Amino acid sequence: MSKAVELARHLETLKINDMYKNDFYWTWDKTNDEIDAIFTVADALRDLRERNKNTKVFNSGLGISIFRDNSTRTRFSFASACNLLGLKEQPLDEKVSQIAHGETVRETANMVSFMADVIGIRDDMFIGEGHKYQKTFIDAVDEGYRDGILEQRPTLVNLQCDVDHPTQCMADLLHVIHHFGGVENLKGKKVAMTWAYSPSYGKPLSVPQGVIGLFTRMGMDVVLAHPEGYEVMPEVEEIAKKNAEATGGSFTKTNSMEEAFQDADIVYPKSWAPFAAMEERTKLYQQGDKAGIDALEQKLLAQNAEHKDWTCSEEMMAKTKDGKALYLHCLPADISGLSCDEGEVDNSVFDRYLVPLYKQASYKPYIIAAMIFLAQVKDPVRALMEMDKKDDERKMF
Amino acid sequence: MSKAVELARHLETLKINDMYKNDFYWTWDKTNDEIDAIFTVADALRDLRERNKNTKVFNSGLGISIFRDNSTRTRFSFASACNLLGLKEQPLDEKVSQIAHGETVRETANMVSFMADVIGIRDDMFIGEGHKYQKTFIDAVDEGYRDGILEQRPTLVNLQCDVDHPTQCMADLLHVIHHFGGVENLKGKKVAMTWAYSPSYGKPLSVPQGVIGLFTRMGMDVVLAHPEGYEVMPEVEEIAKKNAEATGGSFTKTNSMEEAFQDADIVYPKSWAPFAAMEERTKLYQQGDKAGIDALEQKLLAQNAEHKDWTCSEEMMAKTKDGKALYLHCLPADISGLSCDEGEVDNSVFDRYLVPLYKQASYKPYIIAAMIFLAQVKDPVRALMEMDKKDDERKMF
Amino acid sequence: MSKAVELARHLETLKINDMYKNDFYWTWDKTNDEIDAIFTVADALRDLRERNKNTKVFNSGLGISIFRDNSTRTRFSFASACNLLGLKEQPLDEKVSQIAHGETVRETANMVSFMADVIGIRDDMFIGEGHKYQKTFIDAVDEGYRDGILEQRPTLVNLQCDVDHPTQCMADLLHVIHHFGGVENLKGKKVAMTWAYSPSYGKPLSVPQGVIGLFTRMGMDVVLAHPEGYEVMPEVEEIAKKNAEATGGSFTKTNSMEEAFQDADIVYPKSWAPFAAMEERTKLYQQGDKAGIDALEQKLLAQNAEHKDWTCSEEMMAKTKDGKALYLHCLPADISGLSCDEGEVDNSVFDRYLVPLYKQASYKPYIIAAMIFLAQVKDPVRALMEMDKKDDERKMF
Repeated sequence: MSKAVELARHLETLKINDMYKNDFYWTWDKTNDEIDAIFTVADALRDLRERNKNTKVFNSGLGISIFRDNSTRTRFSFASACNLLGLKEQPLDEKVSQIAHGETVRETANMVSFMADVIGIRDDMFIGEGHKYQKTFIDAVDEGYRDGILEQRPTLVNLQCDVDHPTQCMADLLHVIHHFGGVENLKGKKVAMTWAYSPSYGKPLSVPQGVIGLFTRMGMDVVLAHPEGYEVMPEVEEIAKKNAEATGGSFTKTNSMEEAFQDADIVYPKSWAPFAAMEERTKLYQQGDKAGIDALEQKLLAQNAEHKDWTCSEEMMAKTKDGKALYLHCLPADISGLSCDEGEVDNSVFDRYLVPLYKQASYKPYIIAAMIFLAQVKDPVRALMEMDKKDDERKMF
Repeated sequence: MSKAVELARHLETLKINDMYKNDFYWTWDKTNDEIDAIFTVADALRDLRERNKNTKVFNSGLGISIFRDNSTRTRFSFASACNLLGLKEQPLDEKVSQIAHGETVRETANMVSFMADVIGIRDDMFIGEGHKYQKTFIDAVDEGYRDGILEQRPTLVNLQCDVDHPTQCMADLLHVIHHFGGVENLKGKKVAMTWAYSPSYGKPLSVPQGVIGLFTRMGMDVVLAHPEGYEVMPEVEEIAKKNAEATGGSFTKTNSMEEAFQDADIVYPKSWAPFAAMEERTKLYQQGDKAGIDALEQKLLAQNAEHKDWTCSEEMMAKTKDGKALYLHCLPADISGLSCDEGEVDNSVFDRYLVPLYKQASYKPYIIAAMIFLAQVKDPVRALMEMDKKDDERKMF
Repeated sequence: MSKAVELARHLETLKINDMYKNDFYWTWDKTNDEIDAIFTVADALRDLRERNKNTKVFNSGLGISIFRDNSTRTRFSFASACNLLGLKEQPLDEKVSQIAHGETVRETANMVSFMADVIGIRDDMFIGEGHKYQKTFIDAVDEGYRDGILEQRPTLVNLQCDVDHPTQCMADLLHVIHHFGGVENLKGKKVAMTWAYSPSYGKPLSVPQGVIGLFTRMGMDVVLAHPEGYEVMPEVEEIAKKNAEATGGSFTKTNSMEEAFQDADIVYPKSWAPFAAMEERTKLYQQGDKAGIDALEQKLLAQNAEHKDWTCSEEMMAKTKDGKALYLHCLPADISGLSCDEGEVDNSVFDRYLVPLYKQASYKPYIIAAMIFLAQVKDPVRALMEMDKKDDERKMF
């Protein structure tokens, strides 16, 4: 029995009826079975592809991508996932198109979706706005479908919003699961999600938020560490607490990077902007207050610079479990002595973890494909079984 | 018998031999049977897609798109149509490419067409130039095909030129046909194609021209209304007159929006620039006379502002047949109190017609697909029949 | 027996084991059999496509394209080749993506390649840098493949570097082979690869270098002509010399365009920048010395202007064999009296050769497809045979 069939049989045991024709905003919207199903399908699709099986679900159809911020890896992951399933990625570039000229989101959403099966949106720039935009967009196509304008109801894949970054954090976690030899080995593992210094400013909060909102579901001991003033959204901390309670793990906070790293099995040191400052920035942008934005940026950079000791150095790594914690990063990292003078991580640490870091990233296309698969395929178990059985190859010669 | 088969049988009765390997510039180049064929194939493809049939015609091949003006909806419609038929849309971005550096149109046309089956061009900016560019481009690939440079002869879909906007106006008309329950119900219906005020200037004339050139073929009473000075191309008015004579309808002109709206079954209020001013603008651009262009813009904006009463208000809508005329717009509209202070249409009117407006737009991908289909498929009746019969699905799982 | 089968049988006689899973940097890396194989597969794929055979190798997969310089024809050739084989061309636009923000090439290479089968790179701007970039990129994915990060090992197609332009020069040569009725007729033919005046400056050296490095393998008499100071890379001249010795042809140099054109069977007059100046320019860019760059540009333009007599005029063409040498150009050309006042070629000469020039260009998509095919298909002979035999059409209706 192939791995794909084994995984399909596991999928059969999960309660996933609500995933079909549904959207993926945040991991905490999803049940444990649904999260499990995403991992299962991601692994199954990977196994099928490795065995040169054709995994196309669609003969035609579009996967619309909307990136309201620059992106290489997420863009390519989404394009790869669409291609794997037979969809054509069609980017909606808001600078080129007429959207800038006063079209409402609702109108645009319908206009681009006549033949769209999937919508992938990244909108992480402004606290309070990213999720709202995704929701408005999808509510519009949902209404369009109900009104008979759209023949099919395209499903959302959140490619990063201001609250969560589910494709990233699920790829991170699938990597962790495989690294530790299975989800059953994660219980009791200590995870240090810590802030780290970067010479840039204004990095999104969605990664730390996504990590504490997801990793706490695995019965792990998740520590969120950051200097005072770098708080994340309180709503997400609440979710992390409840998750921890429900799974017998823990969620704690500290203002000491050392404390977080001490005996950690997994470390995720990464820069982000203070939540309150990001809220202020959003307001300044809405008011078009350029002087205010510049002043805020200077203030934040100065604030950052007070915490240059928050860096994933060799000394810090030595504090972790056997000095060998699994180092995670969503990339690109600010690497001291390589991409900047002082940054999130020592070059020697980063370099030692290159292979696992790239493997971590390699799960993202499959996570996205699994999200699309489960939202679009009515009988995913049968589909995986048939793909496994059929003599249909990805590379035919 | 499915709707697609029914439509294929109707297609069999039409004389459409000249459509194969031919281009689509203007609707008035086409016979009534040919126009009918486009509508028939568009409806058939829509029925097949709604029934999850695979409608791919090509296993490989490119659909080149050239947008010499910004576009969202037409771009996505073209990409969707290509994808539906198995072609890959390949945009030729003239800003990125070397075309700006003195390549002739003829050379570029051949260089991008080695594996192109379709060329879609939008060039609506300058009176006297858009159609010319399309013609030059297609003449070049035609010559290239005859000279043995190209293995196949790509066909043109006019995605909007300075004279006509056939994919828009045919989508508009197909929407009207379905709204009134069939082409046989259109005879005697009154259509008000009227100018409306917009705070912007320089909108293309191709929509009003396309509408009067096409809707007059259906035996309808088409009224073109605009303030003095906003005349459209006289050649197209001539076509509208002849069409009306041939079909027992009428084509009239007025300088009163009220008169046009009175008892109208269909209203299409939309801003456009005066033809003569657009001719002047083209010359100024050719001379690189920036001061002249700015002066003209100011003059035109001032001229526009004298006609702010030309707006599709609730009062105006009340004059139409039972106060319930079908409101059409090619979108995006300038909506008073929503996208601008004073514009083409009241927010309450626009909002009431949202669903039909989006349905109107939903026909465009199918109209484009039908144009490609009829230009590329040798035996379109057989193709539709086989697509209907085959156990080949668009979404396979 | 079809032409494709005939070509497949010829392919069977060639020693091409090393091509599978290998890269294409420079033509002189390849054995004569390997060069022959590319031509053979290019012709076979063209024959299959002309007979409407489906030539897809892949059901899914990406062909990443990286253009670090503007491009229309090479971009479309690569996209066409990918599409012909079933791959989706996915451009990596370095201006839009995060690459500009300090990602290393190694990281990017892996991040975009998770589902990539082919990488096409054009990087011809800076002497000493283009090839280096390609090598670094491919070394990274090779390492990624060995480390188990990538499931497949994407292969490189050099779409132009600072040293060679193999897809261009092989398309040029295939055109020459067909023009003269077979490779066996090339022995002893005189080829004039000559510099020509252009009002622009800084054109890459990869075309003249590629031509002398490739055409000398055919037993032809290759003359490289340029004004003093316009030398190409000495390493490539060495290769040309050795090739000529091995095949019984010759490689000579002259500073007289007349001498080169005298009795030539083939002429390739084209502007390029002096190698030494390009080396200097690369250093100035690395130092960010803008004043130095501007001064160099002025110096080079003045130097160019001293050689306006180096142009492919009617007088010059009259000196060639029977006045009818085959005129080659990679396009776009600087055409005197058409695209510029004084340029590389007289309008009347260029115009007379339009059809052969476009044919020359038409080979490029097939050359690229053949490079991909031979690097990706394990048993290319069987694949061509099956494609020929199967009832599988490119255009299905």
